[in-house]
Amino acid sequence: MLLACPDVPLPKEDAVARCVAELDRRLGPSKVDTREATRLSCASDESDAAGRTPAAVVHAERTEDVALALEIAERHDVPVTPRAGGTGRTGGAVPAAGGVVLSTATLSRVLEISRGDLLCVVEPGVVTADLHEAVEREGLFYPPDPNSLKTCMIGGNVAENAGGPRAFKYGVTGAYVLGLEACLMGGRVLSTGRRTVKGVTGYDVTSLLVGSEGTLAVFTKATLRLVRKPPEIATVLGLYHDVAACAEAVQRIIGGGLVPRCLELMDGRTLEALRAQGAAVDPRAGAMLLAEIDGDGPLDDHLARLGEALELGGRALDVVAAQDASQRARLWEARRQLSPATRKLAKHKLSEDIVVPRTKLVELLAEVDRIGAETGVAYLTYGHAGDGNLHVNFLWNDDAERESVDRAIGLLMRATVALGGTLSGEHGIGIAKAEYLPLEQSSELIALQQDLKRVFDPRGLLNPGKIFPAGGHRSC
Amino acid sequence: MLLACPDVPLPKEDAVARCVAELDRRLGPSKVDTREATRLSCASDESDAAGRTPAAVVHAERTEDVALALEIAERHDVPVTPRAGGTGRTGGAVPAAGGVVLSTATLSRVLEISRGDLLCVVEPGVVTADLHEAVEREGLFYPPDPNSLKTCMIGGNVAENAGGPRAFKYGVTGAYVLGLEACLMGGRVLSTGRRTVKGVTGYDVTSLLVGSEGTLAVFTKATLRLVRKPPEIATVLGLYHDVAACAEAVQRIIGGGLVPRCLELMDGRTLEALRAQGAAVDPRAGAMLLAEIDGDGPLDDHLARLGEALELGGRALDVVAAQDASQRARLWEARRQLSPATRKLAKHKLSEDIVVPRTKLVELLAEVDRIGAETGVAYLTYGHAGDGNLHVNFLWNDDAERESVDRAIGLLMRATVALGGTLSGEHGIGIAKAEYLPLEQSSELIALQQDLKRVFDPRGLLNPGKIFPAGGHRSC
Repeated sequence: MLLACPDVPLPKEDAVARCVAELDRRLGPSKVDTREATRLSCASDESDAAGRTPAAVVHAERTEDVALALEIAERHDVPVTPRAGGTGRTGGAVPAAGGVVLSTATLSRVLEISRGDLLCVVEPGVVTADLHEAVEREGLFYPPDPNSLKTCMIGGNVAENAGGPRAFKYGVTGAYVLGLEACLMGGRVLSTGRRTVKGVTGYDVTSLLVGSEGTLAVFTKATLRLVRKPPEIATVLGLYHDVAACAEAVQRIIGGGLVPRCLELMDGRTLEALRAQGAAVDPRAGAMLLAEIDGDGPLDDHLARLGEALELGGRALDVVAAQDASQRARLWEARRQLSPATRKLAKHKLSEDIVVPRTKLVELLAEVDRIGAETGVAYLTYGHAGDGNLHVNFLWNDDAERESVDRAIGLLMRATVALGGTLSGEHGIGIAKAEYLPLEQSSELIALQQDLKRVFDPRGLLNPGKIFPAGGHRSC
Repeated sequence: MLLACPDVPLPKEDAVARCVAELDRRLGPSKVDTREATRLSCASDESDAAGRTPAAVVHAERTEDVALALEIAERHDVPVTPRAGGTGRTGGAVPAAGGVVLSTATLSRVLEISRGDLLCVVEPGVVTADLHEAVEREGLFYPPDPNSLKTCMIGGNVAENAGGPRAFKYGVTGAYVLGLEACLMGGRVLSTGRRTVKGVTGYDVTSLLVGSEGTLAVFTKATLRLVRKPPEIATVLGLYHDVAACAEAVQRIIGGGLVPRCLELMDGRTLEALRAQGAAVDPRAGAMLLAEIDGDGPLDDHLARLGEALELGGRALDVVAAQDASQRARLWEARRQLSPATRKLAKHKLSEDIVVPRTKLVELLAEVDRIGAETGVAYLTYGHAGDGNLHVNFLWNDDAERESVDRAIGLLMRATVALGGTLSGEHGIGIAKAEYLPLEQSSELIALQQDLKRVFDPRGLLNPGKIFPAGGHRSC
């Protein structure tokens, strides 16, 4: 069962037809795709948010195509939903109002990689893993590594301000965006930001666009900061009886001044799911912590300190360090199998993406237990413990359970905010969390953001139905 | 001779009088200061931008005072200029339209320092050096270190997105602002951002406010991210025949994968100024590079690599490493004396704050020479070479030279933008650089920013005359 479509104004059918006809005429038919299979494939993303099937999918091949499509659509009063990889988890790329999907997946060139200035310029359709490879060939490093890195694209990463395990040391996508070329509804093209590492000229429009979930502009180029590829990496795994011990190890590591690039926590239920998949996880373990450090010099001293922190004064069940790349791959194997492993546990899975201050990790995990007991919904939790960013996965088989799941999500959101946390660490609000926004933000702040939205898109045609709670919901 | 006041609408005298009377009545006379000395002291900052003397200075002691002052001022249609330390270099705190100055210097408490969550919550009047001391007592570290750190305040640092030498490794102020409490013109109070290191809930209003130069909101609280204090520091000085060699050393350091926390360049004229002050600088040196590395483990390996890069294959005149804190202080002495030393060279000094991509440093320095020769204006250059952020100082004694100085500044701005650079790295645009904004930004981007400004301040009463070029200028 899908989440109901948000209640957004729908375009007039004849206006949509005229819009598609003009797009076809002016962009050329090869760029305007009205085949049913394409339209259906662009009606959803990797969330459970339901979309309305678009009338056409525009495949933009250059900036001018994007600008022209936005100009034509605005003139016909037709909503546009931008889309890159379509791997989002909250419905950001789902066309809530039908209309037209504007795909930048075909804008996929790496335009420049500069070793001297430590930056690259890329189009939005570049797959994140491809960018990793391209810059690493030059001895450079683009840290953001969302889990979907083999299929997600830079355009979506920027739109959602995507994270990933390495964000603990290196920060999320936004920390690497120096500048953007962005097209606004109506067809204006803006260049924001800069090619320099520093710069305070005017307002930080670039940061306002990062994470705006395709509601303010459609990106056509991104200038991304790079760092040198760290030559040394070491990975250590700690196994514990329970998550409380695991969370204590996290605090010890950070309290000791270490900044691992990744610090991934998996709870007991997650380990069970992995075992059910055939992974060789110590049967005594009720929690696991995967820590990875990197640097440009010998890591021995850091590795010793990391090992000691993970030992937890002898209370760890086991601490295993990888000696080489293949051992490191083996330690990561369990973490990488997580998403498919949990998907097999039940017919439906919803992965929440909350963040709490690091010191509240144990309290949050206890809250999750309470919520599971109260609602009877199955769950498991893993995530980026260093950031306090946990993915709480709710699992169910029967549509009749959905009401309990919704109650569990609501309780989790409330508990998160009560602990000083935030609704989303890296997936965004989209359709899926829009109704919870008022839990975290005041009506004044929400109204201000809606006013900012109107500056970019006065008629509300660009990716409607996202981020802000609608008046009501109706079924698609 | 001061820079002419921007051409902004001035408030009606009787409206100002009624506004000040209501402020006095509702805030209490102790918070509303109409003494001439106070008003005059708040009519300027550390730039050459001329202000119109305000009718009153409000000393806010709590958030409610700020909100109330902004509510009263808007109702009377009276402009408000926010002010913290008043140490800005581009006129950000200068009241271009008279009206009322709203000082948050008296909102100066450190409200919280959390070692577990690595953050602090402070009021805007906290002096930056005092914050450094407070967090370092807890083993923590707040990296941004603008040169004026002993007198500048966090409110101003956030408003200007201030940098400093350590920004090369650690980033500027904005990289540490997790959340803000901000009051809008009219008296609305907003809480933006979060207490967690990650978060993508809604638009990044916090980043939009950072660096907005007091034109969007007045800050009353800032939640700042902290890091562990790095226990190990090492400082090395390289002396060269010329700046080209110095810039080459910068590229070698960065190209070799080192990330010093500071990388400060001083050109030959700067060294002459230091010698004139009695500093013991090797008479053969025509350029100097001060590099500082830090870390939480032994630095020997990094120090050896840094030394080798600085040696430049034997072409350095000298490379000196500090062995302890007192030697380190001695190496920094020259850099710290720079501002007073250059101020004594001439009656007037203007320090520009341009940034170019790092690979363009040598080209920029050559441009500066050309501009000096063409205009006949004396100059010297130093700055944060790692960031490509240089302070080009123009020096003159006679008011009649001002026209040539303005021409030199204009040429420098054009050269900077032509090299792919930006007008300001850490000082902001304020009044001083507003007329150059169109060199870097398109009219569409400027118009969009002015629309964003109207969302926060529809009547244009908060810090008018800043950032955006006015239609014309008239004398104050």
